Amino acid sequence: MAKTWATSGVDLHLEPTGPGVRRGLTDALREAVRTGRLAPGTRLPSSRALSADLGIARNTVAEAYADLVAEGWLTARQGSGTRVATGVPPTPSGQSGSTALPAGAAPHPRPRGHPAHDLLPGLPDLAAFPRAEWLRAARRALTTAPNEALGYGDPRGRVELRTALAGYLARARGVRTDPGRILVCAGFSHGLQILGAMLRARGATTMAVESYGLDVHWRLLSDAGLRTVPLPFDELGTNPRTLTDQAAVLLTPAHQFPMGGTLHRDRRAAVVDWARRTGGLVVEDDYDGEFRYDRQPVGALQGLDPDHVVYAGTASKSLAPGLRLAWLVLPPGLVEEAARAKGGKDTCGVLDQLTLAEFLTSGAYDRHVRAARLRYRRRRDALVAELARRAPQVRATGIAAGLHVVLRLPPGTEQATLRAASWQDLAVEGLHRYRHPDATLEPPDALVVGYGTPPDHAWSGALEALCAALPEGDATTGP
Amino acid sequence: MAKTWATSGVDLHLEPTGPGVRRGLTDALREAVRTGRLAPGTRLPSSRALSADLGIARNTVAEAYADLVAEGWLTARQGSGTRVATGVPPTPSGQSGSTALPAGAAPHPRPRGHPAHDLLPGLPDLAAFPRAEWLRAARRALTTAPNEALGYGDPRGRVELRTALAGYLARARGVRTDPGRILVCAGFSHGLQILGAMLRARGATTMAVESYGLDVHWRLLSDAGLRTVPLPFDELGTNPRTLTDQAAVLLTPAHQFPMGGTLHRDRRAAVVDWARRTGGLVVEDDYDGEFRYDRQPVGALQGLDPDHVVYAGTASKSLAPGLRLAWLVLPPGLVEEAARAKGGKDTCGVLDQLTLAEFLTSGAYDRHVRAARLRYRRRRDALVAELARRAPQVRATGIAAGLHVVLRLPPGTEQATLRAASWQDLAVEGLHRYRHPDATLEPPDALVVGYGTPPDHAWSGALEALCAALPEGDATTGP
Repeated sequence: MAKTWATSGVDLHLEPTGPGVRRGLTDALREAVRTGRLAPGTRLPSSRALSADLGIARNTVAEAYADLVAEGWLTARQGSGTRVATGVPPTPSGQSGSTALPAGAAPHPRPRGHPAHDLLPGLPDLAAFPRAEWLRAARRALTTAPNEALGYGDPRGRVELRTALAGYLARARGVRTDPGRILVCAGFSHGLQILGAMLRARGATTMAVESYGLDVHWRLLSDAGLRTVPLPFDELGTNPRTLTDQAAVLLTPAHQFPMGGTLHRDRRAAVVDWARRTGGLVVEDDYDGEFRYDRQPVGALQGLDPDHVVYAGTASKSLAPGLRLAWLVLPPGLVEEAARAKGGKDTCGVLDQLTLAEFLTSGAYDRHVRAARLRYRRRRDALVAELARRAPQVRATGIAAGLHVVLRLPPGTEQATLRAASWQDLAVEGLHRYRHPDATLEPPDALVVGYGTPPDHAWSGALEALCAALPEGDATTGP
Repeated sequence: MAKTWATSGVDLHLEPTGPGVRRGLTDALREAVRTGRLAPGTRLPSSRALSADLGIARNTVAEAYADLVAEGWLTARQGSGTRVATGVPPTPSGQSGSTALPAGAAPHPRPRGHPAHDLLPGLPDLAAFPRAEWLRAARRALTTAPNEALGYGDPRGRVELRTALAGYLARARGVRTDPGRILVCAGFSHGLQILGAMLRARGATTMAVESYGLDVHWRLLSDAGLRTVPLPFDELGTNPRTLTDQAAVLLTPAHQFPMGGTLHRDRRAAVVDWARRTGGLVVEDDYDGEFRYDRQPVGALQGLDPDHVVYAGTASKSLAPGLRLAWLVLPPGLVEEAARAKGGKDTCGVLDQLTLAEFLTSGAYDRHVRAARLRYRRRRDALVAELARRAPQVRATGIAAGLHVVLRLPPGTEQATLRAASWQDLAVEGLHRYRHPDATLEPPDALVVGYGTPPDHAWSGALEALCAALPEGDATTGP
C-alpha cells in the first residue's frame, strides 16, 4: 500500500509494510531521513494527519515518531512539531557500509538529533570546558616540549603526564603509585580493552562485574573473549560473596554507576581479601571521583592494596571526553603486559598529554574541578528541591556525588515516563538499560538523570521538561 | 668470580658468569644501569682496563659495551669514552613490572640514550614540526568547535577531519572514498590492531605479509591471533603468486619498507585480482606517500579497487608520530565491523583531529609537506653524492622516495659496520632486522639509513659519522 504524502514540497514516499505496521513505518521514515530524501529541518506531518493519510492508527504514528526521536533521527520540539534532526548527514545510497552507522548512532546510544533537553548521564557540561585556559596550557606545553616528545613515545604515555598524575592521584584520591606504573590510555573504554586483552592473554575466561553498569563495558570485555558474570547487589552495594575463581572484577567503589552508592567498607575489605587469596585482579573504575559534595571524598580502593588493584581514572568527567585521556595505575608486575596489550606504542597525542600535565602542575586543573564541583552541586540542589516540590512521588537517590542521580518512580511507570520524556524532547535513560542481562535482580522503576550534561543556559529548561515528564502517583517505597 | 671495580667513587660490582662471559657481562652492566647503581653520565672504565681487571678478553668487554650502546643504556662518544646514558631513569628495585621497561627501551628498539648521531629509519625531522602553525590552527579549531565536539564522538573520528582527508587523499593519492568510510586511528599500529581484531573476529587465522617489513607489525598481528606468512620478494618487489586462501595481505605498494621499490604494475594488478577472486582483503600501508622526488607519486593501489583494498595513511611521517593520527579508508562493508573492533568509541583526541582538519583545509598541510619534501630531497642528494665520493663500494638503493635509503654493503660486512657505527655513536639499522623470520630469502648485507631523522644542524655530522663507519672494500655486485 504505497502512499505518497506531500508537505512543504517534500514527498514522503512511504511503504509501511512488513511484520508490523509500526516497525514498517519506523524503518521507512528512518530510510527517508538517512538517504536525505527528508532533508534536515523538514517538518513532518502531524501524527493525526499522517495516520489519516496512511489509514493506520494515530498511536502507531506517534510511537514511530517517538522511536525515531529516541534514535536521534527526528526531534520533537514543543510548538514546532516533529522535524528531521539537523545533526544527521544524509548517506548516499550504494554505501551500504555507512548506512547502518550515521554519525554516532549505531555504536553509541546517545542520539545525535540534538534533542531540546539532554539529561543523559555520562557527560559533563561541555560548554564549561575551559577552552582559553586549555589553549594557554597547550601553548606553554608545545613551546617547551623537547623535539623527541614529538616522536614515537613510551607506550605508557609521556613521563611529564605520568609524573603529574602520580602526584595528583596521591593527593586527591589516595592512590599509591609512582609514574612508572601509570599507563595513559584513550579513555576508560580503551583502558578496559587493554586490561581485557591482557587478561585474555593470560588465559582468563571470566570477569566479574556489577549487576548495574554499562553495556558498552560488558561488550568490550566480551569482545576481548571474557565472559562477564554479575555479582549480587543489595543495600550495601555490590556483594563480593560470589567471587570465586574469576580472573578479575570490575567495580565502581567510590560511586556505583548508576546507582550512586559507595561500596560499604566491609565489602571493600572483602574484595581485597579475595584478590589476595586468589591472585584475582580488582579493576577500580573511578570515573567521577572528583565530584563529591556532602563529605570528604571516598579514597581509592587501590590505596588498600596497590599490588592487587588496578585504579582507573579519566579526564572525561572532570574536563571532557573528547580529550580521550584516561589512566590506569597498575600493580608493578602488570606494567609490561599492559603496555604490550596496548600495542607497544603510545596511543594518545603528546600535545594533549603535555597540556594536561601542564594543567595539573600549574593548578589550573584543581581550579577547574573546584569551580565545576560548585556548579554541579548547585544543580543537584536545585534538582532535589524542585522534585520535592513538584514530584514528591519521585525519590532521588545516589545524590552525594557525581553528575547523575537515580529517580525512583512509582512501580510500573518507567517505560511510560521515558515515552513522556521523549515527547518533551528530553533525552534521559531508564534504570533497566543498566541491568546486566544475567543479573538475578529486578531493577526498580527509575530514571538515571545526568544533571551535569546541559549547558547552564539549558539547565532550567531541562529540569522543567523532566518535571513535566514525571508520572503522577503514589510515593515510591522500598529500597 | 665476583669482582668489585671502583672508578670515580662508583662500585662496579659485577659477576660475569653464566652461559657466556659476554652475555654475563652485558646483563650485569645493564642491571647496574637499570637499578641506578651506575648513575646516568657515569664514565665506565676503558675496555682495556676492565678486561684486565676481570681477567677476560678485551674484545668481550668492547662487544658488551657495543651491545649496551645499541640498546640505549650506554653512550660511546668519541673523546669522552663510554658513559651511562642520561635518558634512562633508574628503576627502584621491587618494581619488577617496570624494570624491564625503561623509557621506551623494551617495546621500542629505538635507543633512548641520545646517541650523538641518529639515522634510524621511521622518523621525520622532529625539529621541523611546524609548532607555531600548529598552535595557530589549534586555536582556530578549538575556538570554533561546537560544544558537542568535546563529547563522546563518532567511533570513526571527527567528521571535519574525515571530510578534509577524503578531499586530500583523492587529490594527492588517488584514493577513492567519502568521509563515511574513513576511520581515524591512533597511528598505523592502532589501525593494524583494529584490522587484526576485525579479521580474527571473522575467523581469519593467517595474513600474508612482505618478506621485508617491521617486526612490530608482525607482532601486533600475532597478538591479534593471526599467523603472518611472508610472500616471496624479487627485483619486481613483493610477488603475490603464493597468495591463496589467506584472509588478507599487508603491503607497502608505493614504497616498499625498507627496500624502497615500487610494486610493479603487474603485481599490483595480480594482488587486486587475487582479492576479487577470493574475497581476500588488501591492506595498503602508505606510510610516506607524500615524499616522492624524481617523478610523479605512485597512486594508491586502493584506487584500483576500493571494495577490496584498505588504504592506510598517517601523519607520522608528514608531521610527527607524536600526534598519533592515522586513517584507514575502508571498503563499504567493513566500516561498522572496524568501528566495533576499534571499541565502538573514538580513540583520538578531538583537538588534534580538528586541528589537523584545519591544517588540511587551510593549505598549511600542503605547504608543510612541500617544504619538507624539498628539504629531504636535498638531504638525499647530499647523501648520495657524499657516498659516491667517499664510499664508492657502497651502493644506495630505494632512493626515489621516502625518508630512508638502503645502502648495499660488501658481502659479510653488515655486522661489522653496525659495530663501527656504534663506536661512532651513530644509531642505524642493518637490513637483516627487517627480514621476516619465515622468509626464505637471505638478505644482502646492507644498512637502512633514515636520513629524515636528524635535525638540520645534526645532519652533516650524522653523514660524516656514517661515512666513517662504512667498510672499505670492493664495490658490491648483484641485485
